[in-house]
Formats: sequence, structure tokens, C-alpha cells
Amino acid sequence: MRELGAGIVVIGNEILSGKTVDSNSSFLARELRQLGVTLKRITVIPDELDVIAETVRDFHQKFDIVFTSGGVGPTHDDITIEGVARALGRQVIVHPLLESKIREYLTDRPVNSAHLKMAEVPEGAELLMDDRLRFPTIKLENIYILPGIPEILQQKFLALKDRFSVDPYYLKIIYTNEIESTIAVHLNETLHEYPDLLLGSYPKIGNDEYRVKLTLESKDKNYVERAFAHLLNLLPQGCVVKTEG
Amino acid sequence: MRELGAGIVVIGNEILSGKTVDSNSSFLARELRQLGVTLKRITVIPDELDVIAETVRDFHQKFDIVFTSGGVGPTHDDITIEGVARALGRQVIVHPLLESKIREYLTDRPVNSAHLKMAEVPEGAELLMDDRLRFPTIKLENIYILPGIPEILQQKFLALKDRFSVDPYYLKIIYTNEIESTIAVHLNETLHEYPDLLLGSYPKIGNDEYRVKLTLESKDKNYVERAFAHLLNLLPQGCVVKTEG
Repeated sequence: MRELGAGIVVIGNEILSGKTVDSNSSFLARELRQLGVTLKRITVIPDELDVIAETVRDFHQKFDIVFTSGGVGPTHDDITIEGVARALGRQVIVHPLLESKIREYLTDRPVNSAHLKMAEVPEGAELLMDDRLRFPTIKLENIYILPGIPEILQQKFLALKDRFSVDPYYLKIIYTNEIESTIAVHLNETLHEYPDLLLGSYPKIGNDEYRVKLTLESKDKNYVERAFAHLLNLLPQGCVVKTEG
Repeated sequence: MRELGAGIVVIGNEILSGKTVDSNSSFLARELRQLGVTLKRITVIPDELDVIAETVRDFHQKFDIVFTSGGVGPTHDDITIEGVARALGRQVIVHPLLESKIREYLTDRPVNSAHLKMAEVPEGAELLMDDRLRFPTIKLENIYILPGIPEILQQKFLALKDRFSVDPYYLKIIYTNEIESTIAVHLNETLHEYPDLLLGSYPKIGNDEYRVKLTLESKDKNYVERAFAHLLNLLPQGCVVKTEG
């Protein structure tokens, strides 16, 4: 089965200082899961060149796909392009195509250095065009550079997503009204029989409907169905509130 | 001025797989900022022992305070205690005080190995008691081990927070109806005069009230006020919608 592992680097002091809640990583997490891509790491780092370069280099080496979010505007704190370039030992250049797109877009205004900053890319970067986008997405090797503004990040990701499709995960869910520590032994037993099962156990406080949500997943549909039947059979009678999937 | 840098390690496949949205790191980010603590890193990692150990060791060395969130329940995927112990080369032991508290709590049920798992701590850990909590918080050196369930994490953090208070940040905000690339030059000019200013520029799409929110911060109140006056004076006439702080 084709496997892809991904990492997300969120760049922005506004998130670390609690001014903004990052919604981009949870959006990407859901989208990647639907595509069958395994998200392995999310990290939120400050607008500091050394930290960006070091983190992006690390992710570039560890994961098949890397997304950066944030730090691509025209101001002093937008240093992602420079950070990604430094991560891979590249120069920053002004891309002629981006420059012409920006001049076209700003047809009625004088173009200043802040505008032209947005035409910068790491040397060797590809521009991924799409009819649905006003500006292309910048890609350097396995790194996709996305903006921090959620609406634009989402547009850009949706235009890219077809290239990441791999084998999907199959998910089954069991909701129980028993407490976690009582059913833990059955979870362990199931994992012993089905060691490749992705099994999650999530207690919910103050919920009338259930106490623990159990998630069973695999890229092998038959495997997850057998594990599901096995666990259902082990759980104490009457403790299953409902199942899904 | 007393400075403290913090890192948050969020442990949980449920977040990386998009099943759950992490609200703990944004809660901690806001709380730490109010205390004057500088949050330097958030990372979300899977329930994998090696990754937990490596990440916690790295954060333990880099930051003054480390919080972990998640992976402390009774089930197979709750391996944070073991990961933190491994990060610092410690054994995992059953803490007698925790064991007695768990037996007390479960007075009417048989105690199984899953229950006793929750009495485990890394050797040398401190238990931080508080009248407001049913169970103490486990601390190993500069690492505070917090649960993933938001309600309990919040209770535990609020009981701890007094120990982290340092000099606060002073924040002033300017909302403008000018686009970011036009005012970028004034931001750069202000940073040139006030190089220690923490200056953020956040465009908002589809907002009638303003186009860019500018945040000016410093732990030196007088400094941020002078920088604020300087920037207001530079901005094009009529572009400031309102100010705060």
C-alpha cells in the first residue's frame, strides 16, 4: 500500500502569544486523513529565521510532504520564504512570473518593495498554477508553502489535494457507557490479536450519551472489521451505546 | 526582568488524525501570555514512545518550563509517563500516594492493572497537591505532565499558574483600513527606531471594520507607548479605524 507521511510547520508569533487560534493545522489534519495521508507532526514556531530554517530542514528530511502555514505576506515578520530557502541552502530570488502577476493585480497603484517581497521564492522553487487561484502555490522539493490566512490556505490546499491521494483509512467507532479503566483490558486483548490496528480510546466528561469513544482504524478494510467484531464480543454486555462506520 | 520560556508537547494520534481539535495548546498559550511567560514552541506528536522521549528531552533542554498534554489514562495508548521517564533516563515506578488515592476513589470497585497504571510516575517525580484537585499534578524537573481532557487540564493549570508569574507584556493594538503592503514601510521604519518592539501585522479577509490589525508589545510599558505614538504618526491620515490598549 502506498504510504505518505506529512508534517505541518505553523509559523506565527500570534499563535504562540495566544492572540490567534490556529485553525489551519486542524483543517489540514482532517483533509490529509481523508486522503489517506498520515500526519506525523504539527509544530508551531515563532517568526525567527533560525528556528524556521532548522525546523523546515528537519521536517524536509523526516517526512514525505511538508506544509508550512504563515509568514508569507509583505511585512517585516513575513520571513518564511527566507527560512525555507535557508533550510535547503538556497538563495532567495524574485520570480519573474510572480512579479508580473503582482504588477497586473496592482494595476492602479504604485508597486513598492513590500509588494515585490511577495514575488520572492527560494531558488529552484516550482510555481503550482491552478485556475481556481489568483496566485500560484510555491513548492520547493517536498515543501508546500501555504499562507496563514485560513480562507486562502484552504483554497490553495483544495487545489493541491489530488496529488496526495493514497490508500484511505477505514474507521469504525464504538461508543460505550463503561469507564475507560474497566474496558482497558479488552482493548489490550484486541491489540494483542490485531497488533496493526490503530486503536484509540477517548473518554468524554459530562456527556450523557457515552463515556468512552473507541476508534478502530486500518488501511485494510477486512482487518478493521475483524478487529471490530473481536472487540465487540469482548466488551461487557450492555455497555455499547452505539457504533459507527 | 524575569523571563521564562515555555514549550508545549501535545501527545495524541486523535489530533494528528483530525478526529479531535486540540484546544489545550490555545488555552495554555493565552494563559501563559497573561502571566508574562513566553511560549516558544507547540508540537503535536503521535502516541509513540521514541518520539515522546526524544521530543520531551529536547524541550526539557531548550525551555524553562515544559507542559505535556495527553496520554495519561489507563489504556494501551497512554504512554506519556513512560515517555517522559525515558526522556530523562528514569525508571517508571508506582507512587504509593497515588495508589492509595486511586484505591480510595475506587472504594466500591475491584482495582485492576489499568487503574494502577494511573499511579505510575517517573522516578524522582514530585506530586503537586492542591485542595481544588482530586489528583495531584505530576512534575519531573521542569516538566509538568497534564492530561488531554480539556476540563481537567484547565483545572490543573489554574491550580499551578501562580508559580509561573513573571513580568507581564504590555499590548497596544491599531486597526487600519489600509492594505498591508502599503503600510509595511511604516512598520519597518518603526522597527528600525524601536528594534525591541514585538510588532505583529494581521490582515483580515472579508471584514467590514478593518483590513489589518497591528499589535505592538513589550514588557517595557513606556517603550511600547513611545513606539505606538511613533507608528500612529507615520500611518497615512484617516487609515486608523480604532486603537486599543
